[in-house]
Amino acid sequence: MGGGAAGLGVAGAAKGQDPSVRTVVYTEYEDVAYSPCGIPFVHGKEIESFEKLFLATKEQYVAQGIDVHYETTVESIDIRSRTIKVGGEGEVGYDRLILATGWNYDTPDIPGVELGGIYHVKNIRAAMEWDKYLDTVESAVVVESGPIAMEMVSALQHRGINVTLIDPGPWPMADVIDPDIVEPVRKDWAESGVTLKFGERVTAFHGTDTLTHVSTTFGDVPAQLAVIGSHKVANTALAGAAGIKLGSTGGIAVDPHMRTSDPNVFAAGDCAEIPHGVSNVPLQGLSGSHAYAQGKTAGINAAGGNRVHNPVYVPWGMLAGQWMIGGVSFGETLATALGLPFVTGVADGITRARYYPGVKPIKVKLLADPKTRRLIGAQMIGGEGIKERADFLGIVARTGVTVDTLATMENVYSPAIGALNEPIAMAAQALVAKL
Amino acid sequence: MGGGAAGLGVAGAAKGQDPSVRTVVYTEYEDVAYSPCGIPFVHGKEIESFEKLFLATKEQYVAQGIDVHYETTVESIDIRSRTIKVGGEGEVGYDRLILATGWNYDTPDIPGVELGGIYHVKNIRAAMEWDKYLDTVESAVVVESGPIAMEMVSALQHRGINVTLIDPGPWPMADVIDPDIVEPVRKDWAESGVTLKFGERVTAFHGTDTLTHVSTTFGDVPAQLAVIGSHKVANTALAGAAGIKLGSTGGIAVDPHMRTSDPNVFAAGDCAEIPHGVSNVPLQGLSGSHAYAQGKTAGINAAGGNRVHNPVYVPWGMLAGQWMIGGVSFGETLATALGLPFVTGVADGITRARYYPGVKPIKVKLLADPKTRRLIGAQMIGGEGIKERADFLGIVARTGVTVDTLATMENVYSPAIGALNEPIAMAAQALVAKL
Repeated sequence: MGGGAAGLGVAGAAKGQDPSVRTVVYTEYEDVAYSPCGIPFVHGKEIESFEKLFLATKEQYVAQGIDVHYETTVESIDIRSRTIKVGGEGEVGYDRLILATGWNYDTPDIPGVELGGIYHVKNIRAAMEWDKYLDTVESAVVVESGPIAMEMVSALQHRGINVTLIDPGPWPMADVIDPDIVEPVRKDWAESGVTLKFGERVTAFHGTDTLTHVSTTFGDVPAQLAVIGSHKVANTALAGAAGIKLGSTGGIAVDPHMRTSDPNVFAAGDCAEIPHGVSNVPLQGLSGSHAYAQGKTAGINAAGGNRVHNPVYVPWGMLAGQWMIGGVSFGETLATALGLPFVTGVADGITRARYYPGVKPIKVKLLADPKTRRLIGAQMIGGEGIKERADFLGIVARTGVTVDTLATMENVYSPAIGALNEPIAMAAQALVAKL
Repeated sequence: MGGGAAGLGVAGAAKGQDPSVRTVVYTEYEDVAYSPCGIPFVHGKEIESFEKLFLATKEQYVAQGIDVHYETTVESIDIRSRTIKVGGEGEVGYDRLILATGWNYDTPDIPGVELGGIYHVKNIRAAMEWDKYLDTVESAVVVESGPIAMEMVSALQHRGINVTLIDPGPWPMADVIDPDIVEPVRKDWAESGVTLKFGERVTAFHGTDTLTHVSTTFGDVPAQLAVIGSHKVANTALAGAAGIKLGSTGGIAVDPHMRTSDPNVFAAGDCAEIPHGVSNVPLQGLSGSHAYAQGKTAGINAAGGNRVHNPVYVPWGMLAGQWMIGGVSFGETLATALGLPFVTGVADGITRARYYPGVKPIKVKLLADPKTRRLIGAQMIGGEGIKERADFLGIVARTGVTVDTLATMENVYSPAIGALNEPIAMAAQALVAKL
């Protein structure tokens, strides 16, 4: 159930594990196998068309033996009879059911939220229609600074639209990133004309059929468009109604095989929750690569294999204005909120030799447990090389490499591609000095 | 003794360890603290001037309390009396002597090698003069494909000079890189008009005062310039004459504190040899970042501290034509030559989402020991992110992370900065499947 990264990860992995398995994917949408993460960049005209976001054709799934039922809604699940009720198909039996039902925006309970002009960026067909509407928009508000919303701020700005970001937090993505790390993004946006309102909330959306302005705790803002950037909530309505156990985040609880409370039902992706490697806190609503990996684990196990999914350390990264930001696990803000003891080391470095064209600044902050001297988190901002360093530090956190080892790491020095001093090593050296 | 990356690493670290230490640096050159690695890129006009390569002014060293004696030659060492004989200064005593005397090109024993027009890329003042000469050159040969020579091929080509690369090896940098990895570089050079002669040797340089052509095993080539790209050999004449023990590579033998066979003498950088972490084979002639790190270790210990230098795993990387190449420790060629058992996993990936502007291909080959399942080497070519991945895999090799762990690594997926599938993980998955 679900045609996103998790659902297609399931289908491909199940077929890989046992080619004789009959694999049916149900999706309420017209398409599978496109990259929803690319939508903000088409709106921003970095990518020329939505067609570019499609990864595979419908024929390719047919060729792989994966039977996709498009525009088909599953209405209910009966775990005792091992059947689902499918719109237009009636009762359908299963040996193993895999829930990959994804997420929805946590729609704010604000008057007028049902008006036209209020955009939840998610589905590609809807995005194609919204893109035409964007041509008519003069002013827009972005409501809360989730990752997609951060990308939409820049996208709307690239379209020449006046943008106001309204976020109840004290700085952008305050639940993920530390203020010192994100400060250059805030400054970049402010200098390029984005109006930034932190610690503020939208109180009402106004308009007849379509949005004309929003009321906020700081006043009224004219806006023909509101992009909703609220949190992801797990889409678990059918699972919950079927008696499948949900966890503390509201996501479907799974064991390390991605099996739910019912032995014949698995779950993967944004509808499920999975433990964090450092804190053991369950997490939900991670990235497309996490969803895909979880889908592969669920698919292999559902088809008779035996794969254990590891706890996650969540390397992450993205564009934000002119910058790349990223990290692993916890920043100072979150570690403090969780009561985790930590010591930090910070370094300002450069990505190539100081004199080489294209050299960019990069800031790395590492957090370590003062007792074990292991990495519990990292935060970064820079002009290049953030994704690769986040992946690296994800493995460092997972395998328990100490900051002492990082402080003495070897690094590539070659003027065109790397500086004499690697900022990860410098940050680790600063951290070790404090320890 | 020596004003390169190692020597200045020594001086700064000794002062950091004990500010009361009197620190004198002897260099035969006019300058210290410039980046010789940048020279090919100034010749190639990627960098506008040689002045850009200077990292610090002479005044900055004075301010740090580091006494640099420029254009000063140390003539001999007496380890019993703990003195050195310095040109123009006479006998100078020391408590601790640190040898950072660097390297020389292994000058080929070829008739005519003393002619004008034969360029050993190394010193910045010489490079400034050579740069003027390059304006007069129509055709050039590059003799052997060491790393600096690889960069010079592209630099000369960017200057509009006809370039012929003549290398006795079967492909470029054959002692470091595998043929499948370097093939796109060879193709790129061939397509852009570089003449490539592998398995060939220069037999004579011809000219009256200045080079006019070279004879090779395949015929004669007109050339007003020959860039020598032979191996680095450790500059150990004074150390050897003083009775300090040399190792199997010809470099000065040191213990993990970078101490030589004489307890009052340390060595660091290209003049010393250091054990490889996987094979324990001694290595010499690594990168500027290795020299600097060794210098810091030697400086700290010489000034009364206690730092152990780890065996090296040698992450490396560089530009080569349009590509970045890099790796860690051994490729297939070298592992086979050394008789190390290994299994490979190879993956062709991409650096960003397939549809995102600036996306580049990237190929990763991993080598693992089939018994321990640990990484013993990696080889990569791609359009971006090679340096960061090499650093990452250097720590993987050093800490013994298995390919099983790499095969299940988490990775950042965000269209503008990273693809859904990380090529390191894909290569590890291919390797695990073979194991």
